[in-house]
Amino acid sequence: MRAYDPSQGVPGFAFSAGLAKIKKTQGLDLGLIVASAPCIAAGVFTNNRVKAAPVMLAKNRLRSGKAQAVIVNSGNANACTGARGKQDAATVCKHVAAALNIPEHLVIPASTGVIGYPLPVTNIIKTVPHLVDRISTAAASDVAQAIMTTDTFPKMVALSDTVGGKRFHICGIAKGAGMIMPDMATMLAFIMTDAAPSLHVLRTLLRQHVATTFNAITVDGDTSTNDCCIVLASGATPITISTCSSDAGRAFSHVLHEVMLRLSRMIVQDGEGATKLITIRILHARSTTEAKKAGMAVANSCLVKTAFFGEDFNWGRIMAALGRSGARFDMERVDIRFNAIPAVRNGQAVINAADRIKSELGRKEIEVVIDLKQGKHCSTVMTCDLTYDYVKINASYTT
Amino acid sequence: MRAYDPSQGVPGFAFSAGLAKIKKTQGLDLGLIVASAPCIAAGVFTNNRVKAAPVMLAKNRLRSGKAQAVIVNSGNANACTGARGKQDAATVCKHVAAALNIPEHLVIPASTGVIGYPLPVTNIIKTVPHLVDRISTAAASDVAQAIMTTDTFPKMVALSDTVGGKRFHICGIAKGAGMIMPDMATMLAFIMTDAAPSLHVLRTLLRQHVATTFNAITVDGDTSTNDCCIVLASGATPITISTCSSDAGRAFSHVLHEVMLRLSRMIVQDGEGATKLITIRILHARSTTEAKKAGMAVANSCLVKTAFFGEDFNWGRIMAALGRSGARFDMERVDIRFNAIPAVRNGQAVINAADRIKSELGRKEIEVVIDLKQGKHCSTVMTCDLTYDYVKINASYTT
Repeated sequence: MRAYDPSQGVPGFAFSAGLAKIKKTQGLDLGLIVASAPCIAAGVFTNNRVKAAPVMLAKNRLRSGKAQAVIVNSGNANACTGARGKQDAATVCKHVAAALNIPEHLVIPASTGVIGYPLPVTNIIKTVPHLVDRISTAAASDVAQAIMTTDTFPKMVALSDTVGGKRFHICGIAKGAGMIMPDMATMLAFIMTDAAPSLHVLRTLLRQHVATTFNAITVDGDTSTNDCCIVLASGATPITISTCSSDAGRAFSHVLHEVMLRLSRMIVQDGEGATKLITIRILHARSTTEAKKAGMAVANSCLVKTAFFGEDFNWGRIMAALGRSGARFDMERVDIRFNAIPAVRNGQAVINAADRIKSELGRKEIEVVIDLKQGKHCSTVMTCDLTYDYVKINASYTT
Repeated sequence: MRAYDPSQGVPGFAFSAGLAKIKKTQGLDLGLIVASAPCIAAGVFTNNRVKAAPVMLAKNRLRSGKAQAVIVNSGNANACTGARGKQDAATVCKHVAAALNIPEHLVIPASTGVIGYPLPVTNIIKTVPHLVDRISTAAASDVAQAIMTTDTFPKMVALSDTVGGKRFHICGIAKGAGMIMPDMATMLAFIMTDAAPSLHVLRTLLRQHVATTFNAITVDGDTSTNDCCIVLASGATPITISTCSSDAGRAFSHVLHEVMLRLSRMIVQDGEGATKLITIRILHARSTTEAKKAGMAVANSCLVKTAFFGEDFNWGRIMAALGRSGARFDMERVDIRFNAIPAVRNGQAVINAADRIKSELGRKEIEVVIDLKQGKHCSTVMTCDLTYDYVKINASYTT
């Protein structure tokens, strides 16, 4: 497996981005991903009961397992917009299909931004022909720019590997920043590959890998109405993958997981106001569900997150969060390590550990390992600290 | 029912507070509540799996339904302190019992403060005789001072009413500020009455009322290891209450609920860094559990809480929080009102409501009514906004 320049894209795909004046900040806000032929496609979507109009349409269209284009805007979520919102999502897709001369049901919509305002459809429709005119195989990074909201940097990962002497590519684009505790995938992620997995393989691997990547991160514990992760396989490089357990399946799975994991990390690193990436590893829980609950309770605790921001060795807050998580454990057996330095042993502070740990807390990346000593199950959750800037960004996002 | 000056205390009780140098800030940090004779007593305690040593001892002692004194310190939670912590809690009680010349098992311990450090028992024991020497029926407000940690004001409520021409009193003292999403009661609350309820009545009413008071508030979603709410009934005024449904039972219940509710409100108003008190009322949910889940999801959403701080009319965040709460509803039927002004009707923004609501958002108290239109059940949750000062206070609490 090796990394390559994401701006090179993926064989079989072209990209374009434009300015439809949806965002107040006047940046790129409309992106188009298009394949030269219909792709095998799979998606996972938010489990939030409140789903945006494009999520409902995309979910419906991906039942067929096929797609050829994705049209995505930032600046407006097209969520809580009722019948008009559904109509608007369909109208945008119709115009994209006409401009590309492809069937309408192969166009997948996605939106991100503020909830509850009508999508500025007229602006978008006007911009679509310009997007189509300027399609380029080298413009994936423009799309990564166009989907940003409170993100401070575009998020792209491109990895390739070989199977039987043939090289395949997987390139992913994502956006994140806030309202991030995906209950399936993060706000928006689009992953393109030139390999040729079967629909079954693609769906299986996507579902399997979101559990340990996009579903294992949290910025603020809020699950978005617009979360989606869509994978398109062009098959431009004829590596047929009919089972997950074949050599090709394993190689493809490995690269796909890595792309998803790296995008997830980037989302947490760029969490709103974040200054630190914090990885919480729960060891020896009684079940995977309990391990995840324990990890998420710690990762979402405002008290734990502010302590990390303050570089304050306050392990009692971690214990308190574990204690309300629902995971079963004996508080007098818990061990906690910060960047491999023992901090708590059998539920009590390790003597003289505070000074060494305090210096670790100054780092940009901190790993907290929590050993519950109960069973065989583990879980890893990535989060960030809670800072003044999180409050600043979110006290004034719509206005 | 009428309010009276809490510094008058309650017939049958005396109070004292002192300085045991447990807190870094050098304020009062040790409080004593003592009754002239053994009381009927009930308590509810944290459901956090990580329980402080004094919580375990207090819970055990209150099984008997009797108590005569409460010894409480701030500045140290005596949590995650292992066998030594349990011994320390017992030692403090033993010294208090000896100084008061009452049986040891009638002394109830409580602690609040930082987790994971040994209790400075020697300092406490040295201070106990001074406390006992200075006991006064008029010193309840000193105890309210002594239990403060990050609280900015002491919390006391005193109400009285008459039954059959006889007047009874209920006076409550509480502390709050952070780590507040009680899974039964808030950090510390002590309630004294001169009425004479039976143990069964006292336990029943306490459990019933915590659900709508201390268990209906949240500052930061973190449940403390030290939560407890203890009620002592001296019976100094001979109003016998043998059933909840008698006239005396109803009058007592009403006043007790009001004391608990007012203390709960004070805790939220004094939430760490809080500038606003926000009441979330969920109407017409399918069950009480779902109503509570929906209310807590909104009340604990960092995005909702920062929007209130920013006085930003961002109702989409409320919808998103509802959608991940687990409560069943149809997003296209939800109504939301801010201080009685319709903001959302059937899941969509009410036209031209934004300006009127924006001016409401400038107030210190905001009521958000969310009508799910699903069933007959409702729930009320009180919370506060999430501010720069929350981050400031919590990024540097132990150090």
